[in-house]
Amino acid sequence: MRAREKGILIGRMTPGPLNKISDVPGVTVGHHTLDTDQYKTGVTMVMPCADSPYLRPLVAASFVLNGFGKTTGLLQVDELGSLETPIALTGTLNVGLVHDALVEYTASQAPERVRTLNPVVCECNDSGLSYSVDRPVKKEHVFAAIEAARADFAEGDVGAGKGTRCHGLKGGIGSASRIVELGEGADIAGEGADIAGESAGPSPAFTLGVLVQTNHGSLADLRLGDQLVGPRIAAELSAGEEDKGSVIVIAATDAPLSDRQLRRVLKRAAAGLARAGSYFGHGSGDVFVGFSNNEANRLPRETAAGASPLRQIQAINEDQMNLFFRAMAEATEEAVLNSLLMAGPVTGFDGLRVHCLSEFI
Amino acid sequence: MRAREKGILIGRMTPGPLNKISDVPGVTVGHHTLDTDQYKTGVTMVMPCADSPYLRPLVAASFVLNGFGKTTGLLQVDELGSLETPIALTGTLNVGLVHDALVEYTASQAPERVRTLNPVVCECNDSGLSYSVDRPVKKEHVFAAIEAARADFAEGDVGAGKGTRCHGLKGGIGSASRIVELGEGADIAGEGADIAGESAGPSPAFTLGVLVQTNHGSLADLRLGDQLVGPRIAAELSAGEEDKGSVIVIAATDAPLSDRQLRRVLKRAAAGLARAGSYFGHGSGDVFVGFSNNEANRLPRETAAGASPLRQIQAINEDQMNLFFRAMAEATEEAVLNSLLMAGPVTGFDGLRVHCLSEFI
Amino acid sequence: MRAREKGILIGRMTPGPLNKISDVPGVTVGHHTLDTDQYKTGVTMVMPCADSPYLRPLVAASFVLNGFGKTTGLLQVDELGSLETPIALTGTLNVGLVHDALVEYTASQAPERVRTLNPVVCECNDSGLSYSVDRPVKKEHVFAAIEAARADFAEGDVGAGKGTRCHGLKGGIGSASRIVELGEGADIAGEGADIAGESAGPSPAFTLGVLVQTNHGSLADLRLGDQLVGPRIAAELSAGEEDKGSVIVIAATDAPLSDRQLRRVLKRAAAGLARAGSYFGHGSGDVFVGFSNNEANRLPRETAAGASPLRQIQAINEDQMNLFFRAMAEATEEAVLNSLLMAGPVTGFDGLRVHCLSEFI
Amino acid sequence: MRAREKGILIGRMTPGPLNKISDVPGVTVGHHTLDTDQYKTGVTMVMPCADSPYLRPLVAASFVLNGFGKTTGLLQVDELGSLETPIALTGTLNVGLVHDALVEYTASQAPERVRTLNPVVCECNDSGLSYSVDRPVKKEHVFAAIEAARADFAEGDVGAGKGTRCHGLKGGIGSASRIVELGEGADIAGEGADIAGESAGPSPAFTLGVLVQTNHGSLADLRLGDQLVGPRIAAELSAGEEDKGSVIVIAATDAPLSDRQLRRVLKRAAAGLARAGSYFGHGSGDVFVGFSNNEANRLPRETAAGASPLRQIQAINEDQMNLFFRAMAEATEEAVLNSLLMAGPVTGFDGLRVHCLSEFI
Repeated sequence: MRAREKGILIGRMTPGPLNKISDVPGVTVGHHTLDTDQYKTGVTMVMPCADSPYLRPLVAASFVLNGFGKTTGLLQVDELGSLETPIALTGTLNVGLVHDALVEYTASQAPERVRTLNPVVCECNDSGLSYSVDRPVKKEHVFAAIEAARADFAEGDVGAGKGTRCHGLKGGIGSASRIVELGEGADIAGEGADIAGESAGPSPAFTLGVLVQTNHGSLADLRLGDQLVGPRIAAELSAGEEDKGSVIVIAATDAPLSDRQLRRVLKRAAAGLARAGSYFGHGSGDVFVGFSNNEANRLPRETAAGASPLRQIQAINEDQMNLFFRAMAEATEEAVLNSLLMAGPVTGFDGLRVHCLSEFI
Repeated sequence: MRAREKGILIGRMTPGPLNKISDVPGVTVGHHTLDTDQYKTGVTMVMPCADSPYLRPLVAASFVLNGFGKTTGLLQVDELGSLETPIALTGTLNVGLVHDALVEYTASQAPERVRTLNPVVCECNDSGLSYSVDRPVKKEHVFAAIEAARADFAEGDVGAGKGTRCHGLKGGIGSASRIVELGEGADIAGEGADIAGESAGPSPAFTLGVLVQTNHGSLADLRLGDQLVGPRIAAELSAGEEDKGSVIVIAATDAPLSDRQLRRVLKRAAAGLARAGSYFGHGSGDVFVGFSNNEANRLPRETAAGASPLRQIQAINEDQMNLFFRAMAEATEEAVLNSLLMAGPVTGFDGLRVHCLSEFI
Repeated sequence: MRAREKGILIGRMTPGPLNKISDVPGVTVGHHTLDTDQYKTGVTMVMPCADSPYLRPLVAASFVLNGFGKTTGLLQVDELGSLETPIALTGTLNVGLVHDALVEYTASQAPERVRTLNPVVCECNDSGLSYSVDRPVKKEHVFAAIEAARADFAEGDVGAGKGTRCHGLKGGIGSASRIVELGEGADIAGEGADIAGESAGPSPAFTLGVLVQTNHGSLADLRLGDQLVGPRIAAELSAGEEDKGSVIVIAATDAPLSDRQLRRVLKRAAAGLARAGSYFGHGSGDVFVGFSNNEANRLPRETAAGASPLRQIQAINEDQMNLFFRAMAEATEEAVLNSLLMAGPVTGFDGLRVHCLSEFI
Repeated sequence: MRAREKGILIGRMTPGPLNKISDVPGVTVGHHTLDTDQYKTGVTMVMPCADSPYLRPLVAASFVLNGFGKTTGLLQVDELGSLETPIALTGTLNVGLVHDALVEYTASQAPERVRTLNPVVCECNDSGLSYSVDRPVKKEHVFAAIEAARADFAEGDVGAGKGTRCHGLKGGIGSASRIVELGEGADIAGEGADIAGESAGPSPAFTLGVLVQTNHGSLADLRLGDQLVGPRIAAELSAGEEDKGSVIVIAATDAPLSDRQLRRVLKRAAAGLARAGSYFGHGSGDVFVGFSNNEANRLPRETAAGASPLRQIQAINEDQMNLFFRAMAEATEEAVLNSLLMAGPVTGFDGLRVHCLSEFI
């Protein structure tokens, strides 16, 4: 059961129908999991739009809260404010091969010879459970994950989440979403009793979705909503886990946010992580990547011959940002909890058994 | 009563004797408060060392979580990794005059003509309670605050905290500190049951202290420790407050952290703010400034004639950072709560009454 | 005579009619100069638009190449991607009072009580010629400079340039501009022989203008176009000047660049500075600020009641950036030379005589 | 012949014995070149120290002037201020496989199972000459380049420089170095006539070395020293080349610079690039990476059991930075020219012939 089904309600905004990143139209997610004696690892692909991000890039941004990580592609995402590949998540030492697979995948789809590509590959370190130095994730696994992408994807110990640990328990992939309704009174949505009634005129509604790969946090710090459950579980397990791994946060929206606004939104993932118990440990690559697949703001790969170098795009007034910020904080916290609650226990290559949260609540 | 006296224990690390930023040897704090019908404002000075920061600068850094703010001096703090003035906190529109006062103060103390100076002036917007467009904080008030600096300073609605609001209640100045004991096993301090006993050899101990000026957050989001108290208070007050103001976080330590390490530590203020209920609102200048006054690492103003351009300094291994990170998160959260709990109610120039947290708990 | 009149042609793009920042429609510049025995200083105001930047902010960005400087306001410019005041330039120690004057000026113009304002005040250190510790620039001087603003403003040792030195000679205020013609073939404008003829369809034309306050560089490094003239002049003067001061570069355009694109453009100031001989010295605040006053992209101060939180804005395809980059590099280099060529010699408060470039060429 | 042998003297500082990055003790460079009909590409390895950077990381930093590039590893380099692998340079689409090869190489050398690694792989786009979408650089080529590393390495169209173009001509690998002599008067070294004689006491001397992979710039902009030679060559070739490729700049030093100081030094590569004719084009990944292999400042992989978490390290006073800045600007400019002058002409997979500079001067 996911957090919400367990009665753990995070925040006050309304989730989308699936309460997943795929509530953003066009976004799908695919996993390929390696689950052998030696390997507990895999790859998870976030497909940012229904068509090709290579041919029609998306507005994008990143924010690195703690850079003890190996994510690739962020230099160019930030320079150009754009994303041109699906986002891959995997184990740390697989990054090179997954990067190469994304080149091959894009080349196989493109109408012309691909000459440059900026693959975004994010990672967490799954070497505690998986014999990761073998780099077992190969390109066929990446292609399989892309093939498997769909809106109603699995969470927990799947794909890139197979070998990760979060707050000393089994972590993995989690997701959540929030509906963002703009308009008059929107800036204080939920602050008063009857906001909806105050709103006049049309309220454009967008979705913000989050997907996390969780491998961070200390057990004793774990919170579920307002409950500090970590110390009790730590006592049961006689465990003293360090805060060593990483956490990847992917945010998607159909709102016409600029790259600067997306970066502002991404920073609020920190609030969600903190409320679930993290203080952003030294060894953690706390890396956040976000994109908007809003149709009006898709980018031309290049200015076509004879075409105008000017475009009309949509923009959201800056004073509407609080709604997205709150949505980001809420969805990130809930996604972390979902990654914990949807994971089963996993035993690693050397016999280490990592328990899962649902054993304790 | 402060949070700890109320039984609200934040985190697991041990505070210093005063549980204030002034537990860091050499650090003192002075206030000057303007409390008239028109003005609820003032200035608070953080004196970073017992001697002159101008003649012997300190290692320093900043981190701007949300830059909707007017803090001055951070370009140079970050370029040179150093601080050469006391840190002033005041109301937004007073920044210019306080900046000028810091030049005058430094010039009056310096043995030679001052030709360049980088005043660090931080601010929150107190225009909700104070008729701030008059810029009533003058240089004599700055000098008075410097004069008043001492280790056992007041918190709450004093100095630069006189006119601020935090989570819809009266905010202001708050402080807290943590003892950081390095050494073997230090990385997991507090994670297990009997860490102290595991530690072999000398454990150098340092202090990390935090001071905040709080003007941020929504009432409905306020948390005390693990209790979400905001909604109940909001219902009592029939209030729906926006997240509009800012929060300044000043961190001090006597540990020989580098400027890069200080910046890493500063980022963890975000965890403390989030746990007290913030999601880093759009209109908030969430600005963090930190310094180390470690004697071994004080900087020469310039290389003296005949002196070596090389120095021996101290460094802390990077794998010790978690202790400082946790200390920062804990002390920031506790300092925010202290700023709320130590403040009394204040009525503004136009009759607006801002309640204080102690009326409700 | 300006560089171009001297036959020193920088680059290959075409300047605007005035070859000044004021070729961007709406931009004007005003000086107030203090020229007494004690003081060689002043203030220069860049007025970014014909109407109020406070009521209708402009898209803006900054880039700090070397942060040994005290410019204020950049945190918020970068967070929000917007500018809401004229840009003031002055001497280092005047920053506080000029900051305060901008608050007073804006408050005097605004229809309602001003509660928050983000003044952008840039500076160079003129303490070598001016007894700067007295902070002689007062608010009436700021108001006078605003009053004096016009398109055809003076360059050289005027306003904020009165007391500065550049490459060991008298520096000050300089300006230049370039016409940026977009459209097919635009990306290689000037690269081949007959580009204009290749262009089909309408070519929207914009202007990029630059204004500099120059106080940087070593004499022996000075270049005019492709001529390394510094060593000869240094020999004549028996001078060995250090690279100690700063340089402020302000860029304006009417092109609908985003804040991210503006920041990219600003970085190219580095190429212009380098070609005139700078290597961005340690003691130099090399600070660049840019804005677009394109009408379609002006920002609402806040979303009006009942108004849509969405706007239509204009965007320029990223593959057009090279034209702006080249324009920025060229205009910055030429503006630096103009600041030198238009300055007369100045004798400082303690008798130091700073020669001017036109004495030597 | 290299630039200096041609009589093109860049700047005023003295090069090291080889005038290469390998003048920094411990630094070596190895190439492996693929030169077939289809492929003009390869890999170049910068080995930063004689022993293992994995076991004893080095102080390091990066600066991204223009992020249209795919370099990996910089997040962690900047977060931790350290480098733990050799630096690989290659063609854009080879990055994934080279990344993976660095993991395998490190794992094969390490005494224990490698669980985390941060490979730094830099790249330029050689798809104009090489059929790069095949990603022909395999791990054995990486190992061969490491094996081939030596102090007196080749420049020009070798290794990662085989398929690159610079200012419309054949670019590739270039290198240069400067001796940095600290001490009294050092700040103005070379500014006056007789600096050496002014210096009292010991002057510690260090080396700053630079290696570039050049793929950037327009032909018409090319400068050799103070000569704008580009237009003449462009006319001879009837060529109008765009500024499309990238440039990688690697800096090495044995001086005990901090990571912050290294980043400051790296920025001055921009001056060197600009003087050779670049304005940092849109499509160029202008990425700079630097390290210090100073023995006193090598970093522990982790704090050993029982060992002190505190270290004594060396620091250089900030007012000595100008010497390193000037050295960086000079060595970068000279390295770019060496990359051009040492390259022969190359004909690409589709018959495109790229001329070399030495055909024209």
